[in-house]
Parts: sequence; structure tokens; C-alpha cells
Amino acid sequence: MPLPKPVDHLAPPLPQDLVKRFSAIVGERYAITDPDDQQPYLKDWRDLYVTRTSLVLRPGSTEEVAAIVKLAAETDTKIVPQGGGTGLVGGHLPHEDGAEIILSLNRMTRIRAIDPAGNIMTVDAGVTLQQAQDAAAEVNRLYPLNIGSKGSCTVGGNLSTNAGGTQAVAYGLARDLVLGLEVVLADGRIWNGLRTLKKDNTGYDLKHLFIGAEGTLGIITGAVLKLSPAPRSIEAAWVGVPSPEASLALLTRAQEKAGPAVSGFEMMPRNLFEFVLKHMPGVRDPLAQPSPWYCLMELSSAAAGGLRETIEEILSSGFEDGLIEDAAIADSIDQRNAFWRIREGMSEVQKQEGGSIKHDVSVPVASVPAFIAETNAACEALMPGCRVVPFGHLGDGNIHYNLSQPLDMDKATFLGRWDEVQALVHGIVGKYHGSISAEHGIGRMKRELLPGVKDPVELDLMRTLKAVLDPKGILNPGKVL
Amino acid sequence: MPLPKPVDHLAPPLPQDLVKRFSAIVGERYAITDPDDQQPYLKDWRDLYVTRTSLVLRPGSTEEVAAIVKLAAETDTKIVPQGGGTGLVGGHLPHEDGAEIILSLNRMTRIRAIDPAGNIMTVDAGVTLQQAQDAAAEVNRLYPLNIGSKGSCTVGGNLSTNAGGTQAVAYGLARDLVLGLEVVLADGRIWNGLRTLKKDNTGYDLKHLFIGAEGTLGIITGAVLKLSPAPRSIEAAWVGVPSPEASLALLTRAQEKAGPAVSGFEMMPRNLFEFVLKHMPGVRDPLAQPSPWYCLMELSSAAAGGLRETIEEILSSGFEDGLIEDAAIADSIDQRNAFWRIREGMSEVQKQEGGSIKHDVSVPVASVPAFIAETNAACEALMPGCRVVPFGHLGDGNIHYNLSQPLDMDKATFLGRWDEVQALVHGIVGKYHGSISAEHGIGRMKRELLPGVKDPVELDLMRTLKAVLDPKGILNPGKVL
Repeated sequence: MPLPKPVDHLAPPLPQDLVKRFSAIVGERYAITDPDDQQPYLKDWRDLYVTRTSLVLRPGSTEEVAAIVKLAAETDTKIVPQGGGTGLVGGHLPHEDGAEIILSLNRMTRIRAIDPAGNIMTVDAGVTLQQAQDAAAEVNRLYPLNIGSKGSCTVGGNLSTNAGGTQAVAYGLARDLVLGLEVVLADGRIWNGLRTLKKDNTGYDLKHLFIGAEGTLGIITGAVLKLSPAPRSIEAAWVGVPSPEASLALLTRAQEKAGPAVSGFEMMPRNLFEFVLKHMPGVRDPLAQPSPWYCLMELSSAAAGGLRETIEEILSSGFEDGLIEDAAIADSIDQRNAFWRIREGMSEVQKQEGGSIKHDVSVPVASVPAFIAETNAACEALMPGCRVVPFGHLGDGNIHYNLSQPLDMDKATFLGRWDEVQALVHGIVGKYHGSISAEHGIGRMKRELLPGVKDPVELDLMRTLKAVLDPKGILNPGKVL
Repeated sequence: MPLPKPVDHLAPPLPQDLVKRFSAIVGERYAITDPDDQQPYLKDWRDLYVTRTSLVLRPGSTEEVAAIVKLAAETDTKIVPQGGGTGLVGGHLPHEDGAEIILSLNRMTRIRAIDPAGNIMTVDAGVTLQQAQDAAAEVNRLYPLNIGSKGSCTVGGNLSTNAGGTQAVAYGLARDLVLGLEVVLADGRIWNGLRTLKKDNTGYDLKHLFIGAEGTLGIITGAVLKLSPAPRSIEAAWVGVPSPEASLALLTRAQEKAGPAVSGFEMMPRNLFEFVLKHMPGVRDPLAQPSPWYCLMELSSAAAGGLRETIEEILSSGFEDGLIEDAAIADSIDQRNAFWRIREGMSEVQKQEGGSIKHDVSVPVASVPAFIAETNAACEALMPGCRVVPFGHLGDGNIHYNLSQPLDMDKATFLGRWDEVQALVHGIVGKYHGSISAEHGIGRMKRELLPGVKDPVELDLMRTLKAVLDPKGILNPGKVL
């Protein structure tokens, strides 16, 4: 893990006349120079990075963003664009030397337009995910992206990092939920790609260049989002299964019997569930007997009926074939929420079991069981007594492959082996043609790993695009590439 | 319409030594120099273009494609990549002067791998859409792209043009159905982006650059396709409706009640249906009384049951609210196929009503009724007696806005007004922020229209990408840009 390194030198502070020129664009009130007031913009939630800046700018419009970038291009000022600040790989933070200014989108929070008949919504980049979900729900629609940080994270950040989350199995990633973008380019021009069309084959699809580029190729200022009909029925089951193989077979069966109605499929091991039972007050085991693994399966549908029959059909056929040891179907919204609270508590409770070494990896869905078996054995051989707690979005092949420290080991000693464990896990990921960042992105944290895992031709193409779209290197330098 | 122009000069034929060097890559047998043997590679199905080439090459592997492009880059030889040759805008054809060679992917027809548990299939670019559908069906999966030319068109061509078709309303366009690509770049390097991962956030998403780029940025040689569970139930209804407004309201209602189970939603006017009744033997009107407009609505689901109830619920609620005049639900596969035959005959029968002026446009779904009303009035004012027959994929806002000639007009006189009519129609498309090419692409036919409809910033970005990815301009020159 790239723990904060001591800074050998600080960058010279931004010259006062330049601070004034940038501040004039947004107004003094929205230009933050006081280090105390800047604090909320300088942190990540794991406190991995200690960062500095001369200036935080909070533009109120796309035109102001464009004016800032134009001035930055003229004066070679480097910019870190920032949404809700919930990134997990340091992509939203300046470096320790304080050479970059921060451009926060958090004042751009307008729902610009919403069209239920067309199933589309146009929003500012600074709208939070929760706001976007709420605006859709008000017109009986669903904006289906759903991640834990939804109260803080923004649409612009979601798109810049191509966020995933728990409903991606049915609805796709943030990339799949967008029709058009508005982007400020590295020279300050505005690209108005706010298309509201489902079909448009008039040339290269530029929006995908900026989605997932973590602000290194342009700054997303607005987006046209795709909405879905609000589900009229939802069914959830908590299922005890004998193994990851059985989980995969159950997932396949569920999709064969319910197709895109399978809107969530999470998998977790018994030991992690025990952490939850131990540390989260009020959580009870929905089943009478323990199982080695669990699945949380959710179906949802715009149709009024038929879903209970479908989930029962999936479960009873799973029982018959030995894929399932025991299962409980939620009989109320409260019970469904209780199932999801178990899943959502899994990150938090690991903190209470000492040090954690974490990975956000993916492999082809069908390879998940073999990947877990091989990686578990390798980790336990490397560090006897470590507690492996791989869990996550089985439907997307996305496993948060985490290890909690051995009970008898010192936390610092354990964390000191991060790079060694990571190399082991990522090595096996590579063997399965997987990804070392399934949904969190590269940011700063994984930047140095990229050359080790990317095809050189692909890296070269990425560098070519960066060089041509941001020739002065002012947009989020030192991230991704 | 860009009718073939007389050629003022022919390009000098490719020097014999170069013909030999290119032919040696694929073997003499797969290098076609005889003009008669070349004919199948030089045509489009509307016979709009009369084209020439010195050489058609039929490589059998990605390595051979790469070797051809490398030699072309060294010798400044221009290449037209070609799939099944079913394009409608001339994107797959060389120019009249014969300066370009053709690189056909039609020998690369391997299904490389298929993984039902992971819902993925890896194929060569030259696999036909029908082959891809069949390979998926063999393992109880669905490759849901579906277009009229499926017996001839290829996966590589579908991806290069981002094909749409009748199931896009539920499953998306070709772009949405791909996880990874293999592409030969303009310098002959191979980019192996054949990812089989649902989630991978390790840098820029390069595949979307090549999808829909019509072979101008690279040559797609292989693809990883997403599969869906095969539907277990399908219901289709032929519905008479009073107006496009009612069609739109019915679509909205169907999606609210059935979500992504709405796998087809086509709309067509009575006059076009009458062309079908008149010219297609064996077609009968499924309804007793005529309606001014019709919808063909199809629901499909991986679930075994419940769909008949859902389609009945949609139709009865539509009746109650006056959205529907009459409707027939298909009671057998034969009847469902009969409904689709009506829809599929609509292009063909127009030929038998004289000259046709055609457009492939889209507007935001909610704007379709207003767009049709305004355009119909404008066309009828411009050319009294013309028969407007707008039809197509309402669920995607994609209207094939076609006009059949007035009964009392000479065909040539009518077709002579193509540019005038097109300017009128495209002008109204622009007013509704629509697209002048919803699904067919730009190719040669619409290339000169692009600067008139694209934001200059976007055009500039497209040119920048073309210049950096194909600096010598050897890949499909004179197409798109």
C-alpha cells in the first residue's frame, strides 16, 4: 500500500496575483485559501494521504469551470477535479507538495431537466447520487446506480470513476447509465455532448473517453442519465450455501429463471458474517444452522406479480440439486433491509478485527470459485492464521478480497506485509485474466501497478490519448498514468 | 443523396510488386485481382456506388490482418475493411477511382470460446450475426442483437457500425453487448483488449473508440460478446392505435408494467401497412377494423410464467384509457412470426410503390409524436401527394422517416428532389436535437452532412483522434470524416 511518503520539498505557493485571478472567476466567497477551511477537501476516508493546496475553487457553473481551466492552461497551473471526495484510491486529492489547485464541483447541484416518458434526466455533475435517485423516484422512475457513499458521492465522480455497486448485475455500471455528457476540455473549451438520444451513430462516441478517466482527460460538468421504470415488486432471500461453486451455480440458475430481474447477487463467507454478528448490534442470523458461505439474492421487476413464484422456483430447484443448505425469503421490507444491513456492515466490522489488507479485484464470473480457492490457500500458506474474508458482487465477478490479521499478530507487523500479500493476490488475479481494480479505479494508489498488469500496446494508447487531449498535463496529473 | 459521380480519373493500379507482397501474406488463393471475382466485394444492396479496387485480400488470422496493415502503413496503401458487405451508407466500399484495397474479414469465422456460466462468447470478427446467435442458442443463451441482414452481416461489421435493430429497446445496441475487443491498429500493432470481465476500472475504456468508428481508427478482428439467458416466455401483440401520441403512452405504460421485458416496440402507419397487405402474398390484417397507426409490442422473459398476465394488463389498461382501438395477442409462434413478417416486409414493399426517399433518424423518445406531426405537414406542403411512411423502433426514438412518391409523379423527378426533402427532414430533426443517423452510420453517404450537424468542438475532437490513431490516413479514408 502506498502509505504517505515524507515530502522532500513543498511546491512554491501559487503567486498571489494568480490566486486573485482564479478567485475572481468564482467570487472570493467560493475561493478557499485558509488551510482550516480547506480541510474537508484534502482528505480521504481512510486517512491514507496528507495533502496540501494553495487554493480550492468552487465554481457555480460550467462557464466558470471553463474559465478556470482556460486560465490554468495559460498559466500551467495543475488542477485536481473533485466530486464528493469519497474516492478510495486518492484520485480526488492533490499531492503532498501542494502544487495543484482543487476544483470542486460541489456547488453545481441542479437537476437540469427530467423526462419520465423518455426515461432521461439531465443533471449537473455535483448532484449527489442520493439527490439523483430521489429526483427519479419523484416521477416514479429508478436511477439504478447504488453505492454505499450515495449521500456524499456525486454523479460527476461516479462517472469519472465508472462506479459499480450492488445493482450493477442487472443495470450495469455508471458508464452504462449515461446517454450524454458535458465536459470542459484541457484547453477550457466546453464539449456539449448532452445528447438525449437512445440511438445516434454519427461518429466516434466521445463520452466513453471521459467516463472512467478519473478527470485526467477532461472535467465532466453535466450528464444525461438513463432512468428505468420503478420496480413494482422486489423479493430478497438470504441463502446458506456449501461453497462458492454452489453460489455460482445458484447465480446461473437464478439468471436462467429470472434474467435481468436478478438485481443483486452478493456472496460472503461465514467468518465475515460472524464478524457482523459479533460487532453489529441488533443483527441476527436469519437461518437456524450455520453454512460455510452465504448469498444475498434480490429480484426486482416492473411487473406487479410473479416474482415470489420465481424466487421460490429458483430456491426449490437449488435445494433439490444440493446448491442450497438453507434459505429465508424476506417477508417484509424491514426483513429485506435487515438482509442488506448484514451485507453493508461487512466493510465496517473488519476494522474491529484489527488490521485489514484489502483488494478490489475481478475475474471472469465463472472463475470466481477457483480464484478464491487458490488465493485462500496461497494466503494461508504465506501467513498462517490470517483470516481471509473474500466477499462481494458475485454477479459481476467482483470480489473484495480482504484479509484480517491473525489474532496473535501485531497490527503493524501485519500491515507491513501489505505489498507482499498484494503481489501474491494480484499475481493470481493475473493468472485468471482478472482486474486489479474492478470498481474503485487507479487514482494514485494503483498507478505504479498499472505497467505491471497492462498490455504495453494498451498503455501506449492511453498515453497517446492523454498527450493529445491534455498536452500540458494540467488535468489531475500523476493519476492513472 | 450522393448518387455515384462520374470518375474524372482512375488511380494508378497498385504496382505489381506490391500486389505480390500483399498476396504473399494471405496466400495467392485469398488475394483476388480478377475484376469479376471481385464483384461481390464492390457492391451495396441498393446499388448506389460503382466501385473499383486493385486487390481484395482475405486474411485468415489476426496476425495476417496485422501484417497487411503494417505493409500498408509502410507503403502508404489505403485500406477499406469489410465485413458482410451489408452497410447502407457505403462505409464498406472503396471509392470509384480504385485507389484503395479491400481487406475482407469473411474468412475469420471462428467461435473462439463460449462460456454459458459467465454469459460470454469470444468470436472472430467475420462470424455472421446468425452464426453468433446460433452458437449462443446451442448453450441455451441469447445473443440479443437482431437485424434484418443477420445471415450476411458480421460481428465485426455490427460493432464497427454500432448496429441497432429490433431488440435494442431491451438489450441495447451492439456497443452495449461487448466486453472486450481485439483490434489491429493503423501501424499494424495488435491491441489485445479481449477482456472477459464485467468490471474493470483500470484506465481508459479504449474499446468504445473503435466501436462505431466504421473502421477508420482500427480494424476489429475479434470480440468478447455478452450473452443473456434464453427467454422462456415470449408474448407479442399487434395493436391498432389512434395516433403516435397513443403509441408513446402505450410504450411508457408497457415499460412501467414490464420494464426490460419489453423486448420490441415498433410503430407504423396504416398506409405503410396497406402497402404490405397489397404486395406481400399471404399477409392478413390481424384486426377486423383499420386503425390509423399500429404497434407491434413484444415482451420476453427468462421467467417461465406471468408474461401473459402482464401483456393483458398492459392492453386492458390501454383500452380503458383510449390508447388502443383494437389488439390481437399472438396465440402461437406462427402467429407471432406473422406479426413480425408484417414489420419486416416494410422496407421491401416500398420498392413496389415507386421511388422512395429515406432517412434513418432519431429524436428523444418523448418527441417522436411531435416530430412526426411537424415533418409530415412540412413534407406534404413541400410535395403535395407524397406518401409519408414513417416507421420503426419507437422504443429507441428511431424512425425510418421514408417518403414514397406521389402516384402521379415521375420516379426520376421525385428522386431528383432527394436533397431538398432531406434538408427539410434533417432540419426538423435538428430542431428536436435528434440524429441524422440513428443506426446506419455516416460512411460515405452522410459524410458531407456531418459538419452541418455536429458541434465544432466535437468534430475537432474526432479529427484529433483520427489524426493521432491513423496519422497516415490509411484506414477507410474518406469515411465518417
